[in-house]
Amino acid sequence: MLMDDMGWGDLGVYGQPARETPNLDRMAAEGMVFTDFYTANPLCSPSRASLLTGRLPIRNGFYTTNAHARNAYTPQEIVGGIPDSEILLPELLKKANYVNKIVGKWHLGHRAQYHPLRHGFDEWFGSPNCHFGPYDNKETPNLPLYRNMDMIGRYYEDFPIDIKTGEANLTQLYLKEALNFIGRQHNDDRPFFLYWAIDATHAPVYASKKFLGTSQRGLYGDAVREIDDSVGQILAHLQNLGIAEKTFVFLTSDNGAALISAPNEGGSNAPFLCGKQTTFEGGMREPAIAWWPGHISAGQVSHQLGSVMDLFTTSLSLAGLGRPHDREIDGIDLSPVLLQGKTIDRPVFYYRGNEMMAVRVGLHKAHFWTWSNSWEEFAQGIDFCPGQTISGVTTHVQQEHTMLPLLFHLGRDPGEKYPIRVTSAEYQGAIQQILSIVQQHQKRMVPGEPQLNVCDRAVMNWSPPGCEKLNKCLTPPASKPWKCSWPH
Amino acid sequence: MLMDDMGWGDLGVYGQPARETPNLDRMAAEGMVFTDFYTANPLCSPSRASLLTGRLPIRNGFYTTNAHARNAYTPQEIVGGIPDSEILLPELLKKANYVNKIVGKWHLGHRAQYHPLRHGFDEWFGSPNCHFGPYDNKETPNLPLYRNMDMIGRYYEDFPIDIKTGEANLTQLYLKEALNFIGRQHNDDRPFFLYWAIDATHAPVYASKKFLGTSQRGLYGDAVREIDDSVGQILAHLQNLGIAEKTFVFLTSDNGAALISAPNEGGSNAPFLCGKQTTFEGGMREPAIAWWPGHISAGQVSHQLGSVMDLFTTSLSLAGLGRPHDREIDGIDLSPVLLQGKTIDRPVFYYRGNEMMAVRVGLHKAHFWTWSNSWEEFAQGIDFCPGQTISGVTTHVQQEHTMLPLLFHLGRDPGEKYPIRVTSAEYQGAIQQILSIVQQHQKRMVPGEPQLNVCDRAVMNWSPPGCEKLNKCLTPPASKPWKCSWPH
Ligand SMILES: [Ca+2]
Ligand SMILES: [Ca+2]
Repeated sequence: MLMDDMGWGDLGVYGQPARETPNLDRMAAEGMVFTDFYTANPLCSPSRASLLTGRLPIRNGFYTTNAHARNAYTPQEIVGGIPDSEILLPELLKKANYVNKIVGKWHLGHRAQYHPLRHGFDEWFGSPNCHFGPYDNKETPNLPLYRNMDMIGRYYEDFPIDIKTGEANLTQLYLKEALNFIGRQHNDDRPFFLYWAIDATHAPVYASKKFLGTSQRGLYGDAVREIDDSVGQILAHLQNLGIAEKTFVFLTSDNGAALISAPNEGGSNAPFLCGKQTTFEGGMREPAIAWWPGHISAGQVSHQLGSVMDLFTTSLSLAGLGRPHDREIDGIDLSPVLLQGKTIDRPVFYYRGNEMMAVRVGLHKAHFWTWSNSWEEFAQGIDFCPGQTISGVTTHVQQEHTMLPLLFHLGRDPGEKYPIRVTSAEYQGAIQQILSIVQQHQKRMVPGEPQLNVCDRAVMNWSPPGCEKLNKCLTPPASKPWKCSWPH
Repeated sequence: MLMDDMGWGDLGVYGQPARETPNLDRMAAEGMVFTDFYTANPLCSPSRASLLTGRLPIRNGFYTTNAHARNAYTPQEIVGGIPDSEILLPELLKKANYVNKIVGKWHLGHRAQYHPLRHGFDEWFGSPNCHFGPYDNKETPNLPLYRNMDMIGRYYEDFPIDIKTGEANLTQLYLKEALNFIGRQHNDDRPFFLYWAIDATHAPVYASKKFLGTSQRGLYGDAVREIDDSVGQILAHLQNLGIAEKTFVFLTSDNGAALISAPNEGGSNAPFLCGKQTTFEGGMREPAIAWWPGHISAGQVSHQLGSVMDLFTTSLSLAGLGRPHDREIDGIDLSPVLLQGKTIDRPVFYYRGNEMMAVRVGLHKAHFWTWSNSWEEFAQGIDFCPGQTISGVTTHVQQEHTMLPLLFHLGRDPGEKYPIRVTSAEYQGAIQQILSIVQQHQKRMVPGEPQLNVCDRAVMNWSPPGCEKLNKCLTPPASKPWKCSWPH
């Protein structure tokens, strides 16, 4: 279950003062809560590519070299997507007879060759891109929703989102798809992998009528409440079918809360610094809960440094499959953590675009580069760290610290406010260890072919497969590729 | 159980990432957690005076008129203290045959007439002031620890605190006092009131040897761990004696975490704005847990707007006693909240010194004055909001907003970052309601005689009662009163 832009501080169990997530909190109480779980990139597409490949975006191609250290993703005009050379989790699970379904946002490319059913999934209900809009279908087409190979309609036309009220019933559709899929696999006695990638907490945030106005937290909170309710229903479904003890469930988010959309359409990363788009803790530390009655004991809290990439390796391990050995896999197998409460030593690398910005080893985090966003963007009101300013840390220039990394202790200072003095013994000891780990990492790093460099309005969702049946085909403009511009 | 400078974000159950408070978290799981519980002032002395009188500092005299909107407390040179005209909780409980003990910090004045045994307590083990020092006993005497009427030694001499390592065994002494007192009352079959006012989390922060270095969070976390362990032992003691179902236990803190001492000696107020000394949420919203097996159902979360002053009224109610009717009491009886899960409508007033800075009604909070501290202090590095700057909110001048209060919605915006537009319908509606409540409040407000205006080095703890037996009497200087200076 992958949340979209949901922050560490959005769940009651993680300290959200409104405490409006009884089902997620119960899931946590019945399972294992991770306090130190990370995404692989503070933006949707690369994070999702990493989850499904077990590899950093710099390896699987979900980055750009158009500009230094800038996040890139898959808007409609992107030409690239997930390369055929990448091995996705569902492709491997197929070998063990799993039926694989994605519900919700794909975001690994929307052109034909990137379609999820070309990369291991058997079923799909959802959209290839973010639900932005409404568009005019002239300059920009409205985004399609797919069922399997074909589109079945477009956002704002066939799948309404009321931008004014925030009303949309999409989470209900995604819930129904999940329940139905689980029920069918249970009936057929088939093992299954459900990738439930809902996006109600990504701006424009939405909730269905029943949930509108039910939160203390405004529309964003309404969306969270609906998701919480849906997760409760899915877990109850597993229990009612008697397959909870056979089903490993993991919930996390693809990146930190989008503080630029706060407070009405953005969540909370408290107590961490900044949010989505940044490599501070607020951009990359995620809520994460593992649930598997009978296997994962209730009421556990793990400080294991985890990553969305570990879900790849761990899922393979739990399915009795091996990980690919012809390539670097960054995800580790968390099953000893989940099943035996062990802790595995491993670093966390914080990438933004083509640059390794920071590294965490133990409780120490070293920033080699700091950047929130440019002064130009900031002057326009785009603020990834609203209300937070740490001199020399939340910089508005890409500031290099490679010669003397900025070091923080995330135990004493989870908010990255107090750099450790360079002359201290603590600094010397920690940096030495970190630098040696970085050196090893860089020695083995072979960047993949960057997929997010080229844009072309001709590749937009003008005429997705199935459009003809719906009379929803639009005429694309002539191809005119350009080097995509990534502002941050 | 009153914590000192412990912040909302310091407990696992409130989202502290290190999650090092298993006993407090269990207490919360077995009882009721308050998300919206407040102190009456963001500083020790006035907060404690309010807890024991059920009245705002502006009424009970724990404020200053020496300067506008400045916090005052009871350092050694203070002449004032708790007036005889105030009725304290233990004085009333005595009428119902309760035995009352204070363990730890009193802070309501250290001169003879302010002694806790003169104000309703039967026993005392602790100190009248904060454990600052070490002093030279020439310019400033080291602070005394009392057992009942007499001092039994001084900090740093007889009760060591190693300022370098943070080692001190005081929490262990306070724990022993609590366990012993409870055991004795149980043996005598006497009802009791234990006011366990420990101060290990107030700078200089300390922990005993066993706990030093055990936290991810440094010395501050070590202190929290020791307190957590002690609370666990006290609750276990109640259960072992079979009196848990007869004992109402409440844990809260006297003010928000002291961010000026962070990260090594200060806690966390995440996700709230600023800390101790301020009337932002970080200064006044407190962790609060009620525990009473058999009476308060397990696993509850209450959004009741609560106050330390409610502990006065609620305790009286639970003891079957009435509240005084000859004076204004600001605390309300929370027993319907605790025992029946009800919610009681009531405002929260945020005072700083002699000024009502802000008011909360429902989820709206209106600031009539904003101030962090002066530019002069700020320039010296004294920062009550480290890393946080909200333009027009965390002001370094005392900024008046009485004509057009700054309004926040604490549900959508617990961090007080996004003032609501003055022209919005939400603003108009909320402000009208708030202004009418403020008008009522001010109509009934008769400020008490301010107790914290006059200082005199002659009143310091030179020769507390009992000093002669210990040969620890010091010679006071001649009396030379002055108007105390309160910098913030
Ligand atoms: Ca996202
Ligand atoms: Ca205090």
